[in-house]
Amino acid sequence: MTYCVGMMLDRGLVFMSDTRTNAGLDNISTFRKMTVWEDPGERCITLMAAGNLATTQAVVSLLDERSKTVQEREPSLMAVPSMFQAAGMVAETLRDVIARHAETGQRADSTFNATLILGGQVKGGPPRLFLIYPEGNFIEASADTPFFQIGETKYGRPILVRAYDPAMRFEDALKLLLVSFDSTLKANLTVGAPFDFHLYQADSLRAGPRDRIEADDPYFQLVSQGWGDALKEALDSLPPFTLDSQT
Amino acid sequence: MTYCVGMMLDRGLVFMSDTRTNAGLDNISTFRKMTVWEDPGERCITLMAAGNLATTQAVVSLLDERSKTVQEREPSLMAVPSMFQAAGMVAETLRDVIARHAETGQRADSTFNATLILGGQVKGGPPRLFLIYPEGNFIEASADTPFFQIGETKYGRPILVRAYDPAMRFEDALKLLLVSFDSTLKANLTVGAPFDFHLYQADSLRAGPRDRIEADDPYFQLVSQGWGDALKEALDSLPPFTLDSQT
Repeated sequence: MTYCVGMMLDRGLVFMSDTRTNAGLDNISTFRKMTVWEDPGERCITLMAAGNLATTQAVVSLLDERSKTVQEREPSLMAVPSMFQAAGMVAETLRDVIARHAETGQRADSTFNATLILGGQVKGGPPRLFLIYPEGNFIEASADTPFFQIGETKYGRPILVRAYDPAMRFEDALKLLLVSFDSTLKANLTVGAPFDFHLYQADSLRAGPRDRIEADDPYFQLVSQGWGDALKEALDSLPPFTLDSQT
Repeated sequence: MTYCVGMMLDRGLVFMSDTRTNAGLDNISTFRKMTVWEDPGERCITLMAAGNLATTQAVVSLLDERSKTVQEREPSLMAVPSMFQAAGMVAETLRDVIARHAETGQRADSTFNATLILGGQVKGGPPRLFLIYPEGNFIEASADTPFFQIGETKYGRPILVRAYDPAMRFEDALKLLLVSFDSTLKANLTVGAPFDFHLYQADSLRAGPRDRIEADDPYFQLVSQGWGDALKEALDSLPPFTLDSQT
């Protein structure tokens, strides 16, 4: 499994992904699931992937090769004129890869599917965030749905729904995401640290702060341990159910 | 879908269930999913069900009829000498009902499966809590796993994992459960109020406070609305991520 979140803030875009992949519970590895392409001053595009690792790595490699081969006739992420066209290109690449793996007639225990979160900004347009489905179609984040989750989405969702605020600072967004990730990895063994993050500042048109937060990172430990007490205090701040008046 | 939680406390057992059933998203009804059998001074047994409604209603009706027909040769929940045997009887009834529905050769869009939570106390034994699978086997709650969830379990799990405390009062347990249920129904349309609850006090050997909490119950409204603010305060109580030192 996987857990990735892409979030639209007033200040820009926040991306966080876990790094655990598994083929069965007894075959666990660490892989980066976040890729950033940038052409400083022109564009910055971030991709996160959940699903079949062979599929998502093939998609990233194909997109990467096209970006690096300037003479390539195929369109490249570094050349598309808008984020919408970037999403279309990534979606088409994803669909093609899945179709190619599926059409061999080979049967696998798992499917070749993958789901992607793509976000960024191309000069001349606003920052945009997309969720791309294995079928090659996609939806865009908006004020009503300002963040996307892929992979194991349920455990970490309630805190995002309650505490997300488009005006929040990057520092607070990272804290919120670490709480959401901590809730998820406490419940699902196939989501695991380290976590990669990227903060894209709106209109900067270049990659922002990126780093990896390890399981033993002191701040993550503090959030993970402090959150239990903070939650208990939050519960204590609500009045208890009154049995007498109800029963 | 459904959401039910059965919880072991030092003081006794707490049960809560939603009441929404659906056959498709456009066919929603309200059904009680909690049944309590009692023989005051002798035993009190509570059953909650998630899954195919025809299956779970058949199971409850079969158990109910046997309990009421004193002359019935089949063993009854009101006569078994222990909670372990009660769990075995309920599990067997569940397996038989599923097998009978399946063996007609009829095909349905959904399966006939159901999962049950059974808890209570029979005189001479301690309070016990079981999770019963459609295959007719079951597991028992313990200090390591002191509560069971069935149905849509993921959204409401993180708060239970963090805030459960075996020493908590019934009033606080109900508050905790309402927060867990609220998180779930905010995310899944097929879980819905009203919620039924039953508080079984250890060694009372009779049904305790039971009631239904409606969607417009003032206390539930207060918890639902207050929880967002309480969570934000909890987040605020943790220090923000420090970008300078990390990037």
